[in-house]
Amino acid sequence: MAETAFRYVRQVKFYETDLAGVVHFSNYFRYMEEAEHAMWRAAGLTVDRAGANLGWPRVSVTFDYKSPLFFEDEFEILVRIAAVTARTIQYTFMVSRGGKTIGAGSMTTACAVRQPDALRAVEIPDDVVPRLRSVCTVTSVER
Amino acid sequence: MAETAFRYVRQVKFYETDLAGVVHFSNYFRYMEEAEHAMWRAAGLTVDRAGANLGWPRVSVTFDYKSPLFFEDEFEILVRIAAVTARTIQYTFMVSRGGKTIGAGSMTTACAVRQPDALRAVEIPDDVVPRLRSVCTVTSVER
Amino acid sequence: MAETAFRYVRQVKFYETDLAGVVHFSNYFRYMEEAEHAMWRAAGLTVDRAGANLGWPRVSVTFDYKSPLFFEDEFEILVRIAAVTARTIQYTFMVSRGGKTIGAGSMTTACAVRQPDALRAVEIPDDVVPRLRSVCTVTSVER
Amino acid sequence: MAETAFRYVRQVKFYETDLAGVVHFSNYFRYMEEAEHAMWRAAGLTVDRAGANLGWPRVSVTFDYKSPLFFEDEFEILVRIAAVTARTIQYTFMVSRGGKTIGAGSMTTACAVRQPDALRAVEIPDDVVPRLRSVCTVTSVER
Repeated sequence: MAETAFRYVRQVKFYETDLAGVVHFSNYFRYMEEAEHAMWRAAGLTVDRAGANLGWPRVSVTFDYKSPLFFEDEFEILVRIAAVTARTIQYTFMVSRGGKTIGAGSMTTACAVRQPDALRAVEIPDDVVPRLRSVCTVTSVER
Repeated sequence: MAETAFRYVRQVKFYETDLAGVVHFSNYFRYMEEAEHAMWRAAGLTVDRAGANLGWPRVSVTFDYKSPLFFEDEFEILVRIAAVTARTIQYTFMVSRGGKTIGAGSMTTACAVRQPDALRAVEIPDDVVPRLRSVCTVTSVER
Repeated sequence: MAETAFRYVRQVKFYETDLAGVVHFSNYFRYMEEAEHAMWRAAGLTVDRAGANLGWPRVSVTFDYKSPLFFEDEFEILVRIAAVTARTIQYTFMVSRGGKTIGAGSMTTACAVRQPDALRAVEIPDDVVPRLRSVCTVTSVER
Repeated sequence: MAETAFRYVRQVKFYETDLAGVVHFSNYFRYMEEAEHAMWRAAGLTVDRAGANLGWPRVSVTFDYKSPLFFEDEFEILVRIAAVTARTIQYTFMVSRGGKTIGAGSMTTACAVRQPDALRAVEIPDDVVPRLRSVCTVTSVER
């Protein structure tokens, strides 16, 4: 089944590699976040609205690694909105390089207001999800 | 049911926080790896045996976030060996601060030999898992 | 006096900020390296030539901070080749955002061959510096 | 001439290495900050006083690299207070492993109050420098 996605392109930096000569596994979560934020900007949004006091803490994340990335590799990430509730968005991410699958991940993030020493989940503002969906314009078969 | 674990203690560094004032979610994967490697060292092992040409690439990882960590927080990680196959080890990680659950994660890692542009999974050397189990001496009830 | 430079443009990522709400000071060294490597690629070069066994360890680096960078700020780096010896290149970096100075740094890097447990400085291949100079095409008054 | 210093001990983490097999040069600035903050804690201080609205932005930093650090290396940092003005502290850092010099750095940091989009330098609270000096108890000859 085809689903639409947002496409983010990135190149591996030297400091993202480790002594095994490949991208350190923790950096894939930074790549996923970059792709998420690029999607928000494409939608005219930002996760850090001045004065809004809203944050987007992560609830849970996963990543499955299929093949490594190397220094200066150019890769793409396809971001999909997999599920939405009143207070959470779940994204999925497919990472590939030249058609070869690198890995796939997911991230569930909640809308929250910052309080002293804690975060309280609140409803996602009405415009966020429709705007994010509007920039998911890349069609690709789910592999 | 009670299970034994390896205990690792750590303090949050300034550069691990982000503009939300808490530890960036990607750093929990670095903490898990630190705990894993501390466990290996306690067992008289290292993931980077000179000349052995063995690596331990990650197959899949997960983390569920319950509560944030702040700058200078001291926290503990309990590492358990959750599953073992001929070529993989699955660890679980429970992160807490002063008895409060911060989150929990898992990591499946494969034993592999490095080849040009790829890694090939091989059998885990016989001594590794028994040695790792021998340093899992902390008893705690799985929450 | 006017000097020519290579121009690199970058945007601040969320995970590069710290609890003070600004880019952590250590990340400027990653930005400088990114600019350096982008310059090399523009010149048809890479610091990681397969099989060449050459590395480019840093000899000394400096940075002076004038004004902070914030999440999603777009900034530019002007890279200049400040000095060249048989075995070292010294670069300078001017970081700015919309004409406002963010800071300035320098980096001296040596050409070296990797040996067990050490690096030995060697002469820079003949083509490297002329090629790097050829992509320094942005003219700007040294501030 | 002998000078007293604060001593900080640390071990290299896997994710701090890069494809050259050594600690990435940017991480030395994180190590220096860790040593600085450990010194503050030893003195009963923290750089992040709740409610105080004070920050300690970096004014300038340097590092000279003599020899690399490898995965799992245990190293020490000697921190000295090199110069103090009404609003700034300059630290120096000597990094070594088993008596071998790894490198040396310096960091000048200002006391500042956070204001919207800027930081304004203010006088250092009276107790800070005497307390920091009181934990500089390691005597070593400046190499």
